[in-house]
Amino acid sequence: MKVGVLGAGQLARMIALAGYPLGVDFIFLDPAQDACANKLGTHLHGAYDDPALLARLAELSDVVTYEFENVPADVAHFLATHTEVHPSPNALAVAQDRLVEKNYFHSVGIPTPEFAPIDSLADLTQAMESIGWPAIVKSRRMGYDGKGQALVRTPDDLPRAWEAMAGVPAVVEAFVPFDREVSIIAARNPQGEIAFYPLSENLHKGGILRVSECLDGDPMQQQAEDYVTRLLEALDYVGVLALELFQVNGQLVANEFAPRVHNSGHWTIEGAETSQFENHLRAILSLPLGSTKPVGHAAMVNFIGGLPETAEVLAIEHAHLHLYDKAPRKGRKVAHATLRAESQEQLSAKLKTLSALADRVDDS
Amino acid sequence: MKVGVLGAGQLARMIALAGYPLGVDFIFLDPAQDACANKLGTHLHGAYDDPALLARLAELSDVVTYEFENVPADVAHFLATHTEVHPSPNALAVAQDRLVEKNYFHSVGIPTPEFAPIDSLADLTQAMESIGWPAIVKSRRMGYDGKGQALVRTPDDLPRAWEAMAGVPAVVEAFVPFDREVSIIAARNPQGEIAFYPLSENLHKGGILRVSECLDGDPMQQQAEDYVTRLLEALDYVGVLALELFQVNGQLVANEFAPRVHNSGHWTIEGAETSQFENHLRAILSLPLGSTKPVGHAAMVNFIGGLPETAEVLAIEHAHLHLYDKAPRKGRKVAHATLRAESQEQLSAKLKTLSALADRVDDS
Repeated sequence: MKVGVLGAGQLARMIALAGYPLGVDFIFLDPAQDACANKLGTHLHGAYDDPALLARLAELSDVVTYEFENVPADVAHFLATHTEVHPSPNALAVAQDRLVEKNYFHSVGIPTPEFAPIDSLADLTQAMESIGWPAIVKSRRMGYDGKGQALVRTPDDLPRAWEAMAGVPAVVEAFVPFDREVSIIAARNPQGEIAFYPLSENLHKGGILRVSECLDGDPMQQQAEDYVTRLLEALDYVGVLALELFQVNGQLVANEFAPRVHNSGHWTIEGAETSQFENHLRAILSLPLGSTKPVGHAAMVNFIGGLPETAEVLAIEHAHLHLYDKAPRKGRKVAHATLRAESQEQLSAKLKTLSALADRVDDS
Repeated sequence: MKVGVLGAGQLARMIALAGYPLGVDFIFLDPAQDACANKLGTHLHGAYDDPALLARLAELSDVVTYEFENVPADVAHFLATHTEVHPSPNALAVAQDRLVEKNYFHSVGIPTPEFAPIDSLADLTQAMESIGWPAIVKSRRMGYDGKGQALVRTPDDLPRAWEAMAGVPAVVEAFVPFDREVSIIAARNPQGEIAFYPLSENLHKGGILRVSECLDGDPMQQQAEDYVTRLLEALDYVGVLALELFQVNGQLVANEFAPRVHNSGHWTIEGAETSQFENHLRAILSLPLGSTKPVGHAAMVNFIGGLPETAEVLAIEHAHLHLYDKAPRKGRKVAHATLRAESQEQLSAKLKTLSALADRVDDS
């Protein structure tokens, strides 16, 4: 089978590494000459909306998927008229606009923080009357890793927050005093089979994910599975999806979802029976889904901006290093390492060592 | 780091898949245009003894390794004078000649079945006086998967057995009425650190490995570790090595060793904390070795000659499929699947299903 991927970054790279044992060949479309998955398949080098390259991608691929959600709607629709595309252009359209996404959450019964659409400073000022302080202004489109976001604590912050949006449509949402951030990763295949991973507990800093830990048997698992099922079924979704949630007063509220494999699921490579990458492929290739059961205890640490010494990471027993073959650059995710251990105590001890190592090279 | 590999078959393919997360790039030298690792690196296409290609391989690689032991001595020495080569040409030289290998075993205190070198039918006839019946005649060089071997049960079998050697130097060895066949896989790095995997119990049919099962806590583990340590240290070995053993009356005797990753260690991909492929790379790149602890229970089944339906294998919970991207052909290893399970009972139940599937497509 031949799978086309829009994007050839680290997510595409890990999809490909999971796909070779299943006999899958890959075609990547990516504008970067040195895109980090490009050694693992055919690299179509050019813009994501280049009609000739898209036609070539569709022609070469049995199914096309994406490693990011900000795919122009035209591109997704073009591909879908020429080959199989998973997730569907509709799922992408919902995910790439925060207003559409939040309305969609509500339509299927998933609670969110309070929010309001804003198209002007006047809208924002007025919305704050009902949202309450503090709140976050977010551009409706093209946000990731905390980009396109501004926190507002007092009325004085409003003009600068609106200016930060540079005139694009936005939403303002209540800042939720959450107890913790979790995400649930689930896969659904065309037969409607759904597989859920255990919740990940996520730690962000500066809007970028730093640490994810697998929570086996968490009391919120059931509620998260209920919410993600509503979403997967309403969207008639095929592939892996990650739903990010806040836990507030013993309840989950949705932050956003990613229609793709997700950084908070990287621990599944070593820490689950089947990784999110393999299950994404199994889903889009209409194969039976693999077991999502945890294998021991697992946590993942991102390396941001700087690379650790390989030998130093590998000297940590139970550490599994994943380099992305990307040049270090301020704020850039360049690698991660997963710890897998037989006990929580073992995991926690090693996690301190690994996190200290990541902090030392972090220049974000 | 850039690793050159002589050969681009399934072993090279699995080494490469383990190497990408460590940031390794690969260069393969293989005469087959469609060699199954060739999509995972630069493929130098030509004969193993082509001087220009070998020079190019050495030039492109920080270290060169092999996926098979029958590398001409000249080639290994040429490479070793131009770049780092692991395992050493000396380890190859010992492994590729059964007589040298058996004498080497004895020199380091590892017992073997009784054997004698033979260069003629007269030698064979005479040797049988001390070896005893039945026995196996084996060519000294180029044997694998049971090729170049002939069983002799009575004096009448001797002429045909000798003819089967086609005039090449051979050895005759006592046929050992073994209780079981096991192998131990170990890795050693240049610092002298050694890591041992749990024993594999191996089932052969027609000279080809069919099933390997991880034996955690086996009573023979200590003896096997002692033997393989003698070998690794005497050879000043760097990389992964597999030592195949027979168990007879509660003792282990050596059959042969492979100076490379080995089919009986494929279960380590899912069934051990660090796979044999990753540990081979860690060793030859002078990195700390990874934990070899088993992760649950694991067994591997080879697919010989014919391919199973992907969906049928993946429908078996806990089954992990590894296709080699090789066209099915009689007697050819084209894929394997590993079962990983939390209990021995769970493993045994699934192993029956998987083995039945492998038997159905087997045309060896």
